[in-house]
Amino acid sequence: MKVFYEKPSITREIVMKMLDAACTKAEQLGVAVNVTVVDEGANLKGFVRMDGAPLLSSGISQNKAYTAAAFGIPTSKWYPLIEKEPALLHGIVHTDRLTVFEGGIPLYINEQLAGGVGVSGGSAEQDGMIAAAAVEVLNQFLNVEA
Amino acid sequence: MKVFYEKPSITREIVMKMLDAACTKAEQLGVAVNVTVVDEGANLKGFVRMDGAPLLSSGISQNKAYTAAAFGIPTSKWYPLIEKEPALLHGIVHTDRLTVFEGGIPLYINEQLAGGVGVSGGSAEQDGMIAAAAVEVLNQFLNVEA
Amino acid sequence: MKVFYEKPSITREIVMKMLDAACTKAEQLGVAVNVTVVDEGANLKGFVRMDGAPLLSSGISQNKAYTAAAFGIPTSKWYPLIEKEPALLHGIVHTDRLTVFEGGIPLYINEQLAGGVGVSGGSAEQDGMIAAAAVEVLNQFLNVEA
Amino acid sequence: MKVFYEKPSITREIVMKMLDAACTKAEQLGVAVNVTVVDEGANLKGFVRMDGAPLLSSGISQNKAYTAAAFGIPTSKWYPLIEKEPALLHGIVHTDRLTVFEGGIPLYINEQLAGGVGVSGGSAEQDGMIAAAAVEVLNQFLNVEA
Repeated sequence: MKVFYEKPSITREIVMKMLDAACTKAEQLGVAVNVTVVDEGANLKGFVRMDGAPLLSSGISQNKAYTAAAFGIPTSKWYPLIEKEPALLHGIVHTDRLTVFEGGIPLYINEQLAGGVGVSGGSAEQDGMIAAAAVEVLNQFLNVEA
Repeated sequence: MKVFYEKPSITREIVMKMLDAACTKAEQLGVAVNVTVVDEGANLKGFVRMDGAPLLSSGISQNKAYTAAAFGIPTSKWYPLIEKEPALLHGIVHTDRLTVFEGGIPLYINEQLAGGVGVSGGSAEQDGMIAAAAVEVLNQFLNVEA
Repeated sequence: MKVFYEKPSITREIVMKMLDAACTKAEQLGVAVNVTVVDEGANLKGFVRMDGAPLLSSGISQNKAYTAAAFGIPTSKWYPLIEKEPALLHGIVHTDRLTVFEGGIPLYINEQLAGGVGVSGGSAEQDGMIAAAAVEVLNQFLNVEA
Repeated sequence: MKVFYEKPSITREIVMKMLDAACTKAEQLGVAVNVTVVDEGANLKGFVRMDGAPLLSSGISQNKAYTAAAFGIPTSKWYPLIEKEPALLHGIVHTDRLTVFEGGIPLYINEQLAGGVGVSGGSAEQDGMIAAAAVEVLNQFLNVEA
């Protein structure tokens, strides 16, 4: 009988580099956002709110990161999943912390779900690009290590 | 004056067999889910999260079991009930813990409502089949005993 | 730079054996309890409420398991830590979910924190013995595998 | 009539340096902690959880930073204030988020309250030293600029 299995968990060092990369990308886009990174247990690992970023979006960025890590798909994939299913469209959106719009991306290490990034404060498209910039940093370091 | 009546309440033993049967069914379907069983008071009686099952769905499975036990109909029957009634469609879906999509099934013993099963983590259809597998175990034991 | 590290995570199979062992121990002691197992992210992995166990203790067992997994020491060690420190004695006990009395034990695999067990419904001593019986099952299987 | 006044608000750049300095200090002390920085509105500005830091302390570090920024004194000063006043000792400790033990330090800029730092995961003394290291970074930059 298998008693346990191993889950990869992101380090603080890479998380802080991801926060930095997200902010740099946001500055290039001329927008101020909130950035959250959660670990494989969907627990808060790192967060930063840029100067002038909307306070309202602080919690949204945390919920996007949670949603990505707790289900394993980008938050942008949720609406297409539910738009043709009225029971989900009217129902599942009430799930606590579930966020069904762009800006949350799951993190994978060795094909295992290892956390999530959430960005909020810009347009949906900007939030998505900024979150992708954070994920890109992780993937670069993973390739270097491999 | 009748002062009290009896409510059937499921035992821990059958609940653990129901959790096992649900997990076996899920493995056959190749999906990892969260499974909840609540008793006649709609209170948590048993729960298990399979390895790799989405964290997000943990609470949804609990809410499905609650909804089934607390109203007495499968959660899949809710949307057809409300879709033609705009006040319900936009209103009742905000009821705390109410879940209006497939995966929650009430438990009946001697025609009395005795609890609920909730499954979340697969497609709506998979969740429904897995919950049915759990209910089936209860019904098998009830028939053997009858 | 280290980008990630591995965390051991308990399987559903061992969790259900732990729930069973806890219930068997509780029956030997003649008490009905709630038993919770959480994983390395302090998220609910398994739960069972025995027939006749107090409903009030359902949440307490979950909080004990959370506390054990989220801090890494048995909940019975908390009071001795804080009783001589009045600021903690009057302050830290208000921390959400923190439980400072017996019945919660952390799980360690290869010296890494891998979850927690929480038991509530009996006396503090009984809860502690029942939680220990659940941990014992994990340790037996770990030794067999080693 | 004076219609408005200026509040100094810490930048993201200094906040990330404060998080780094706190982690460096924690590594020197051989302890893994959660570090939070909030701004002049007592709202989350930056956060990091070190590898291996207790999950339980994540919320405590946020509450310490909140308490410091929302009242303007170090959290270590709270207990001496209330210990001789039974109504406070038994009452005010229930205030939502109020933390009455060491590890939270307010931030002042030009004698104006400008935020707070909160650290949790080590001993009270360690948490206090690590929070002080974060504040020290802010003060160094303020002096250089002055």
